[in-house]
Amino acid sequence: MIALSSGVSDVLVDLFVVLLAAKIGDEIFRRLGQPAIVGEILAGVVVGPSVLNLITPTETLRVFAELGVVFLLFWVGLETKLSDMREVGRVAAATGVLGVLLPLAGGIALGAARGYGTSRSIFVGVALVATSVGITSAVLIELGALGTRAGRTILGAAVIDDVLAMLLLAVAVGLAAEAGVDLVKIAVVVALAVGFIVFFAIGGTRLTQRWPQMLTAPRFADSPLMPAVIGCLGMAALAASIGLAAIIGAFLAGMIVAETKEHSPIEDEVAPLYAFFPPFFFVVIGTEVSLDVLTDAKTLGLLAAVTVIAVATKFVGAYVGALSLGRTDAAIVGVGMIPRGEVGVIVAGIGRAEGVIGNQLFAAIVAMSVLTTLIAPPILRVLLARSQAPVPEGA
Amino acid sequence: MIALSSGVSDVLVDLFVVLLAAKIGDEIFRRLGQPAIVGEILAGVVVGPSVLNLITPTETLRVFAELGVVFLLFWVGLETKLSDMREVGRVAAATGVLGVLLPLAGGIALGAARGYGTSRSIFVGVALVATSVGITSAVLIELGALGTRAGRTILGAAVIDDVLAMLLLAVAVGLAAEAGVDLVKIAVVVALAVGFIVFFAIGGTRLTQRWPQMLTAPRFADSPLMPAVIGCLGMAALAASIGLAAIIGAFLAGMIVAETKEHSPIEDEVAPLYAFFPPFFFVVIGTEVSLDVLTDAKTLGLLAAVTVIAVATKFVGAYVGALSLGRTDAAIVGVGMIPRGEVGVIVAGIGRAEGVIGNQLFAAIVAMSVLTTLIAPPILRVLLARSQAPVPEGA
Repeated sequence: MIALSSGVSDVLVDLFVVLLAAKIGDEIFRRLGQPAIVGEILAGVVVGPSVLNLITPTETLRVFAELGVVFLLFWVGLETKLSDMREVGRVAAATGVLGVLLPLAGGIALGAARGYGTSRSIFVGVALVATSVGITSAVLIELGALGTRAGRTILGAAVIDDVLAMLLLAVAVGLAAEAGVDLVKIAVVVALAVGFIVFFAIGGTRLTQRWPQMLTAPRFADSPLMPAVIGCLGMAALAASIGLAAIIGAFLAGMIVAETKEHSPIEDEVAPLYAFFPPFFFVVIGTEVSLDVLTDAKTLGLLAAVTVIAVATKFVGAYVGALSLGRTDAAIVGVGMIPRGEVGVIVAGIGRAEGVIGNQLFAAIVAMSVLTTLIAPPILRVLLARSQAPVPEGA
Repeated sequence: MIALSSGVSDVLVDLFVVLLAAKIGDEIFRRLGQPAIVGEILAGVVVGPSVLNLITPTETLRVFAELGVVFLLFWVGLETKLSDMREVGRVAAATGVLGVLLPLAGGIALGAARGYGTSRSIFVGVALVATSVGITSAVLIELGALGTRAGRTILGAAVIDDVLAMLLLAVAVGLAAEAGVDLVKIAVVVALAVGFIVFFAIGGTRLTQRWPQMLTAPRFADSPLMPAVIGCLGMAALAASIGLAAIIGAFLAGMIVAETKEHSPIEDEVAPLYAFFPPFFFVVIGTEVSLDVLTDAKTLGLLAAVTVIAVATKFVGAYVGALSLGRTDAAIVGVGMIPRGEVGVIVAGIGRAEGVIGNQLFAAIVAMSVLTTLIAPPILRVLLARSQAPVPEGA
């Protein structure tokens, strides 16, 4: 009765149900020897509107989900050194670009084959483009593969992929709104995005390399946690405000803080935030799924087509891009790039808001996003186990 | 552009500004040798609508503020043993009851003197009643006094105070709505509240005393953090849904988890959540203040009257209730109960929504709530320093 927020008991119930469902899904899938995040997403499907209807993705839950992926990428940044990223730079760029072009072409071809107009076909292509950096990172962390060459390549490619997806989305929205494509505006956004990444990745990490006491000085009363978290949120907000994904800011903030790591073990302190927020991200993705899709033969056919194209084009594009790492690693990279996670859902939502994507297509793209997210982790687990096992020469 | 929540960059900016402001206020006040939470509340005034207007208390910020006070009380519960609370039970009850009755009477008298009607006068009384458990706990933690006899008494009295305030608020709302007071409904709410507290305080702590492995069993994949957090949110939600303050559920959950403490050092893992969320609580309280009050002589007079009555009646009531602890400790308890924090703000808000409290009175009560919150901590710091210093016999 006495509460700061009027609907406080509802909000607390939502948070409770999401975390409990995530924990249960997590524990079950671990026992089955499967990736825990798959369990968390399926837990979201179960508590979501399709099955038990305990949770609908409210604005508050979406904010928590966004913070979930922000802290996830901050964590990934903490585990990543700029030099690691430089090492895989070229392969990651090839992987990112090819892994964007093929799905785009595949989506447009699908649209054309089904007789969609230009702007709708392009939207389908764009919805198939972007790998979910969040999902991919979470799987790599869970499988202990973030530090491998293939893991770094996936991460770098996913960041490049995200920037390209942002660019393509701007084009697609411009076409859908029939406002035409404002090339100057897009050029400004790209320049800002690239400038942001280069400035913080190179400038920021150098700064903290040289003056690590910036974060760990005794002038901060307690621990470096809050300065680091404030930096993370600030850079995430800045990235979002210039049109980049917030998580790219969080990732860069993590890399910058990582340079001070030897001076202060920040990971132990970030770990509880990393335990608390990301489950919201996975469960909320699950709640977006509508199982009605499965009862309608037409949508089911569309879903099958979209999913096959999304999986095949992304795998082939990324595999070819990463082939210089050898076949095994290229296959890991190919599979690692498959999950579309929240990004497909978001692009489809924007398309629906713009009036170019109808309900059937929307449901199919959302289901494809979740399916690709559920398919990839188990395959990746098997491939990684194989690649880490001692193999005979020439295998 | 690609984000889960449409206004994500605004939300991230809000979170960033709140945490940064809190950190700056905190650091400045520590350097001045003053309680950090006063600095955080004043930071809220500065970034709030009254001064810089960077932050308005949105629904999302209120949810974070609520989680702030929930994790604050969860932390307090972790530091509290049921036996500690039993020890101070009687004094705390006397303190709680007297500390409610005198402010209630004072508020009603003020209303009568100003010629308000019955229901408005009662609302003013109720708005003066409740001590903010959150503020008081935070000050006690900061001053290292949570474990003292006076600290325990304040905590116990504040919980009792909160239950009584809930009850009185139900009466006041019933009168204001002219629906009359539904005694049966109120009796049910009280029975539920008391049942909830007794059941969990006694049953829950016994359960975890006997089976501490409930939270720390190896069947949980990683740490006991998430089971503990899920329990905290669940009990907070349950408390809120039966009409109690959510923080009472969180406090009890903390006490229950505390019984397993020797088996697993849960505090280290909760600490980052305790660092992250509570600043939202303090800053949001600050943003509620309207400095316009200070430019209007009439409102200023009303504010002075309300504040003097709020401080004097609460101090005297609590002092008399706690007198069996000796004069020094009774004075500490009296001052410790003064902060009204968010509770005054909330009651005034409900009164305004019910149409019994006008804008001038609302502004005065909100300003009183914040003023009492700012006044008490520095006095408490001095009193505690004096009581802990060796004093001559008979002083």
